[in-house]
Amino acid sequence: MSKASLFLNACIVSPDLSGNIHTMNNAHLAVDNGIISYVGTSEEEAKNSLLNPSSADMFNCRNKLIMPTFANGHSHLPMSLLKNSADDLPLEDWLFNHILPREENLNSDDIYFGSLLGIAEMIQSGIGATADMYFMAENTARAASEAGFRINLCHDGKYKKDDYWYTDEKGFSEFSRSISNMDSEMIRTSLMVHSIYLYPEYLYPQLSEMAKSLNTSIQVHISETQVEVDNSIRLYGRTPVEALRDFGIFDRPCIGAHGVHLSDSDRKILSEKKVTIAHNPSSNMKLASGLCDVRSLIAEGVNVTLGTDGSASNNNLNMFQEIRLASFIAKIVCDDAAALNAKELIDISTRAGYHSMGFNKSGVLEAGMNADLQIIDLLNPSIWPVGQPESAIVYSATTSCVESVMVAGNFLKYKNDLLTIDIDKIRHETMTRSRRIAGA
Amino acid sequence: MSKASLFLNACIVSPDLSGNIHTMNNAHLAVDNGIISYVGTSEEEAKNSLLNPSSADMFNCRNKLIMPTFANGHSHLPMSLLKNSADDLPLEDWLFNHILPREENLNSDDIYFGSLLGIAEMIQSGIGATADMYFMAENTARAASEAGFRINLCHDGKYKKDDYWYTDEKGFSEFSRSISNMDSEMIRTSLMVHSIYLYPEYLYPQLSEMAKSLNTSIQVHISETQVEVDNSIRLYGRTPVEALRDFGIFDRPCIGAHGVHLSDSDRKILSEKKVTIAHNPSSNMKLASGLCDVRSLIAEGVNVTLGTDGSASNNNLNMFQEIRLASFIAKIVCDDAAALNAKELIDISTRAGYHSMGFNKSGVLEAGMNADLQIIDLLNPSIWPVGQPESAIVYSATTSCVESVMVAGNFLKYKNDLLTIDIDKIRHETMTRSRRIAGA
Repeated sequence: MSKASLFLNACIVSPDLSGNIHTMNNAHLAVDNGIISYVGTSEEEAKNSLLNPSSADMFNCRNKLIMPTFANGHSHLPMSLLKNSADDLPLEDWLFNHILPREENLNSDDIYFGSLLGIAEMIQSGIGATADMYFMAENTARAASEAGFRINLCHDGKYKKDDYWYTDEKGFSEFSRSISNMDSEMIRTSLMVHSIYLYPEYLYPQLSEMAKSLNTSIQVHISETQVEVDNSIRLYGRTPVEALRDFGIFDRPCIGAHGVHLSDSDRKILSEKKVTIAHNPSSNMKLASGLCDVRSLIAEGVNVTLGTDGSASNNNLNMFQEIRLASFIAKIVCDDAAALNAKELIDISTRAGYHSMGFNKSGVLEAGMNADLQIIDLLNPSIWPVGQPESAIVYSATTSCVESVMVAGNFLKYKNDLLTIDIDKIRHETMTRSRRIAGA
Repeated sequence: MSKASLFLNACIVSPDLSGNIHTMNNAHLAVDNGIISYVGTSEEEAKNSLLNPSSADMFNCRNKLIMPTFANGHSHLPMSLLKNSADDLPLEDWLFNHILPREENLNSDDIYFGSLLGIAEMIQSGIGATADMYFMAENTARAASEAGFRINLCHDGKYKKDDYWYTDEKGFSEFSRSISNMDSEMIRTSLMVHSIYLYPEYLYPQLSEMAKSLNTSIQVHISETQVEVDNSIRLYGRTPVEALRDFGIFDRPCIGAHGVHLSDSDRKILSEKKVTIAHNPSSNMKLASGLCDVRSLIAEGVNVTLGTDGSASNNNLNMFQEIRLASFIAKIVCDDAAALNAKELIDISTRAGYHSMGFNKSGVLEAGMNADLQIIDLLNPSIWPVGQPESAIVYSATTSCVESVMVAGNFLKYKNDLLTIDIDKIRHETMTRSRRIAGA
């Protein structure tokens, strides 16, 4: 149980549950037992919302802005070990000739320390949760749990025997059991379906059936490159979206990463099947995959979130870079500087992201919601003069503006220090590991 | 005269004078009287290069990277006062309905303090010089001089009388005289020719003649938007590049900002006339101006530099954001993830930028060159693990990685503190000024 906290005199920016952004000056926010008990302009009501106001930690938030933590819509945490090791390469060359061979070298401790490194970078820049897709995820689960970080993470529910792939219900159940002692409000499990291009055709319907019987959500890459779309049409006579729908993958709650190359019909399908598209601005530009048309997705009613992708194709896990770039991309794609404005970006990167992961009580600063919030220092030179707070967040803020990060009422970053991760230890552990993996 | 400095055991990354990037590990760099006296791997030679080695400040640079300071190819420093005040608007609406009316409210002290604020932000992120275009530039000159910052800045060489514009040789001479007591190695003057769309036709040839007679360089905006190109063709029957050439603007050394909408023939002209194109990635995307095709410019032999543009259209003065985004843009424009790689970006943002401003002794870390350098902390979480140093600089580094900045042998930033600018005073001065200008 976390202590009660009282944040006074802040500028508070948050979406409501419908995604509309509200900005309040000289506002107060109270937290009791990990839950927000009050947000508003009455200091008295804020205090009265607490069970025991006199024992609460008080914070003077003049010149501070409080907003929800970011929800990272798509990541590969352990790839932080591969950062800056293979750049300026097209996706297929990058993936098949550089990344996949290096991933063969990863052991379970690498996954654990690489995950902690990635989570540390995320917390630094105000991220409070991520939807992560990787192997040996029980090690990532342990890292997230120790760091006090929310996560929706994949299990790889298949195995190979005599050149044939089988679904792995037993492995999935063991994985679920191994994380069952963790706080169920902090962790969600998805079935990994990497993409339409890595598995044999017969496996997809089986994975879909498995997800239904296990009542789990799914994470998948969708239409990241034109090559992927062309190959899918050649092999299946259908776009990746159509093929995944026909294989039943969209019959469960699904996070589809990328969605760069979509037809109007694809967008309609995604909307009808309530598939989330996790937009990855940096990764899509760096790998020359293309520019995702977010405005068309939103117009079609698709839930759009923002992701960093992995550190090997970004090369940061920094949502301030992604919100800024997502806005820029939309403006270029739409030939309209008003496209995807600052308020929309704040909603997409917070409420919408948490919603996609099944954390429906986070991402919105309202009484009754989880106390997942970040405190931005408005005196930081990079956002000075502040001007419109929403613009300052999206167009000017950087990691260095994030003074504190709270998840479930616990500070993970407090006055610029990480509280739940020993960053010196992680730095030491990841140095030798990253060199070994790179073969250096 | 600055003290001698000896930087030992660093990773040193720098272009040579031809623009090829060299990376040395466990290397040493010596500075004497503002000039680099040695770069290489012999500690003995480094010491011997100094007039008085025993009095030199020694720096242990293990886990540090030394590279040239960035040269910001295009900025409007005083617009830092307008930051975050008018966003998500197309260029014409933004410029004519929001920015120009606010600029009417600016007085000379606003220019001075706004310039200091902008220079402070630039120094924080490793920039050591900028090509600045604004009014009342004597105040910007004073700010730069006090901060120890190199600058190539414009004077507006015209005045209006009875609805007719005249060139202003007298004003220009007075401006030159007012800055003549400043270090001539630190400051360069250009004539401002805002663009092809703001002045009457008769004025352009006169401004060109004036630049010739004053022997000064020119700064101009070129082909930033399709609207600008269309209007130029309608009015002059020529593209902005053709019209500016025909008016004689390119007969002097010229920095042309943007160059987003260029024909093959335009690029040929720019190359023949040795016009620099200052590419402004963030601003061009944020205002939906378009994506500059840098690779085609380079292939045509045009000198390309990188700029932040002003804070009102960026909204940061942060070259790490620009190098990263410039690479991303090139990869999308060329549909090739290998386009504009990390090494090219480092050259463009350092050597090429200084060259465009007439600071030919900066931007390259070699003996005999100016000691304009930045020190990057390789243990900073955002670039850990470092991997390839060039990739780490371009794809991962952020302002928080810049530990120290030296210009002409003097530290402007030392161990994360600004030494030549009182940032608390600037924050106080700019708060009330920015609100007044916004009419708030």
